[in-house]
Amino acid sequence: MIPRTPKPKEPTPGQSNLRDEGARHLSRRGLIEAGAVAAAAAMVSGPALAQESDNLPPSIPEWQLHPGDETLSLPYGRPSKFEAKVVRRYRQGLPEPPTRLSSFSLTPLQDLHGIITPNGLHYERHHAGIPTIDPSEHRLMVHGLVERPLIFTMEDIVRFPSVSRVHFLECSGNTQNWGAPKPELTAQDTHGLLSCCEWTGVPLATVLAEAGVRPEAKWMLAEGADAAAMTRSIPIEKALDDALLAYAQNGERLRPEQGYPLRLLLPGYEGNTNVKWIRRLKLGSEPFQTREETSKYSMLMLDGTAHQFNLVMEAKSVITFPSGGHRLGGPGFYEISGLAWSGSGKVTRVEVSTDGGASWRDAALQEPVMPKCLTRFRSPWRWDGAPATLASRVTDETGYVQPTREALLKARDVRSYYHYNAIQNWGVAAGGAVTNAG
Amino acid sequence: MIPRTPKPKEPTPGQSNLRDEGARHLSRRGLIEAGAVAAAAAMVSGPALAQESDNLPPSIPEWQLHPGDETLSLPYGRPSKFEAKVVRRYRQGLPEPPTRLSSFSLTPLQDLHGIITPNGLHYERHHAGIPTIDPSEHRLMVHGLVERPLIFTMEDIVRFPSVSRVHFLECSGNTQNWGAPKPELTAQDTHGLLSCCEWTGVPLATVLAEAGVRPEAKWMLAEGADAAAMTRSIPIEKALDDALLAYAQNGERLRPEQGYPLRLLLPGYEGNTNVKWIRRLKLGSEPFQTREETSKYSMLMLDGTAHQFNLVMEAKSVITFPSGGHRLGGPGFYEISGLAWSGSGKVTRVEVSTDGGASWRDAALQEPVMPKCLTRFRSPWRWDGAPATLASRVTDETGYVQPTREALLKARDVRSYYHYNAIQNWGVAAGGAVTNAG
Repeated sequence: MIPRTPKPKEPTPGQSNLRDEGARHLSRRGLIEAGAVAAAAAMVSGPALAQESDNLPPSIPEWQLHPGDETLSLPYGRPSKFEAKVVRRYRQGLPEPPTRLSSFSLTPLQDLHGIITPNGLHYERHHAGIPTIDPSEHRLMVHGLVERPLIFTMEDIVRFPSVSRVHFLECSGNTQNWGAPKPELTAQDTHGLLSCCEWTGVPLATVLAEAGVRPEAKWMLAEGADAAAMTRSIPIEKALDDALLAYAQNGERLRPEQGYPLRLLLPGYEGNTNVKWIRRLKLGSEPFQTREETSKYSMLMLDGTAHQFNLVMEAKSVITFPSGGHRLGGPGFYEISGLAWSGSGKVTRVEVSTDGGASWRDAALQEPVMPKCLTRFRSPWRWDGAPATLASRVTDETGYVQPTREALLKARDVRSYYHYNAIQNWGVAAGGAVTNAG
Repeated sequence: MIPRTPKPKEPTPGQSNLRDEGARHLSRRGLIEAGAVAAAAAMVSGPALAQESDNLPPSIPEWQLHPGDETLSLPYGRPSKFEAKVVRRYRQGLPEPPTRLSSFSLTPLQDLHGIITPNGLHYERHHAGIPTIDPSEHRLMVHGLVERPLIFTMEDIVRFPSVSRVHFLECSGNTQNWGAPKPELTAQDTHGLLSCCEWTGVPLATVLAEAGVRPEAKWMLAEGADAAAMTRSIPIEKALDDALLAYAQNGERLRPEQGYPLRLLLPGYEGNTNVKWIRRLKLGSEPFQTREETSKYSMLMLDGTAHQFNLVMEAKSVITFPSGGHRLGGPGFYEISGLAWSGSGKVTRVEVSTDGGASWRDAALQEPVMPKCLTRFRSPWRWDGAPATLASRVTDETGYVQPTREALLKARDVRSYYHYNAIQNWGVAAGGAVTNAG
């Protein structure tokens, strides 16, 4: 084995100061010019070898001494056994329901990179479990206020012209920070009802045009083929705008827990309206007042009334590194990194604070920045070893700025449960432990 | 069960002609305005129901009558059992080597959508199998013509500023159409040494800057930690340009067969130079003349000489639907769809032919179009039921146009094996069967 790298005893020459203002759009050149890279390198690199050598490193690792596993060991691959902890799970500290039929699982955001969520880690929220649907038997019915009620097979659906777009999905119950923060929660616990895939499907407008939308149709009922017959009412404007009948995610057909073989995709709308296992679309003149928009998915307001049809997910962001459960190895350079998104369009700005919101600096936005899609942001940070509070704040193309928790609570009752989108703080202790600061 | 949809007996009213020229950039509005959607819908939709109904469809499917599988049945998910045939495999008709240590597997392009390849279906090419590497023991050594030879742990590497970018990888041995075409081959067989992921990693330039590149360094040896000690020489200009030390793909850490825990990513370069399980980078003044650039991965030319260092993958495209092994259900509307890419930058144009190259029309390019990345193209087609030959032709931002097979053979010996990038033809028989026409 190659010996473990000892800690550097003194700074590498040529160390420079980190700039405080990150480039608004990330580029390697920008970072290099700003001196961030040099500083970063100086802070994290291992020591020089005792002497330069033309030979191999000190010893050959064990895995280079014998052939590895055969090609095609797995016709469909899976992650390394060393990544076994990177999985979906239930929320820490929350008692599980008696069955997992109406339950959820969380995406491990603190262990992920970029903006794509691998299909195996996409969060789940089911109301009566995951049906096993034979695609050759699946049907989509379009009826109600249409000229021609129609039933489609999956073969019919996939023959229509398709589009692929990268969009986030977020459960409206994501992030339960209404009360006192629980320090032990990770980004998976606080923000893990959030994922992002490249979805491929047929524009819903195409299929509705085929059926012929009557002028008096103002709402669309969407029903899933699960045992809950999950049903939501969708404004016709959304159905005719960017809605998709999606049959693929990240290149392959939908996963069972994401609605195989067909789901509704309503970019920017709260997750539950993106009805999975979609089997029926009925057009009507009024909302259908289903269970999921009367007893559930409404928001209690300060005056005691409940708001229905809170459909668009507001702009929100979260730092995923460092975040709850991480531990910094010591003072020095770190790249703060996280995710920002808005159901209203594109992210235009993310600011990062390392002093709990007293001061802010612009983070770099990873391109391409796409509408109703996760945007990865990055910001260089040299930690001096003192306690710090990290936070991010997003602005979207409508000019909406992510609120503080205090501002959110002034507008909403703490019992409103859904659509918590306030700024997330992570505490960094002197020893490097990172905890949820709400 | 809902009864199967019977075939329509007569065309739906309002049917219009397909336009022959697709929009250069895809938009739903564009398609609708051009009448393609209406035509498409008219050709593929099922019949109107006997009468409009406010009730549920004729019967409730079996899977809606009882609860489904529990949430979190799989902490790390997997595809539906109905997609069991969508897997990597070896090439049809090619005798397998005695062991699969030096072998490959192919991505099922004919079953995929969009541009992202799910990690479980990324093609493989290994030279001595897949090593199982403990990331805590893995090291990267940088030495040779540098100021400070260095050894990095994985923790060191991931602390550097990172970037995420979507890039294709293609094996230089992809597409063996030098001889007479084998009709039974699918797109997986002919083009499946091609995949595309969102890669996250550290710009190699950052790490090399830390070591200090000496002015006389012109080439970089990259060595993998597999039993083949896979080694290639890379021009220093590439190493300092857009090369990454990648540690994640599609959001999660690299898969074992893609180089876990660390690989070299050289956007646009032939796959084998993107050395997996990277453990050593040595800078030198000359190419290192390794086995993989002398006996292998060189190209035999017409004059009997062999070209070395054919590093950039030329522009290329392939129709993935319909393609070999598909069968069209009958005359009518189909959306022709495929992939185009270039190792030199962005795709700027894809043309599609349905008459074997006698005439061409522009296909729509799915946005975002990114450099050195797969681009999905789409083109509406109404098949009249007569035999047809489908082909696609890409142009990249350098002005390079994908050649015909005849033009390629004029420049290269049929024994050159690597870098076959000619136009791919698929034959459609009167009965709808689609076969490889080379």
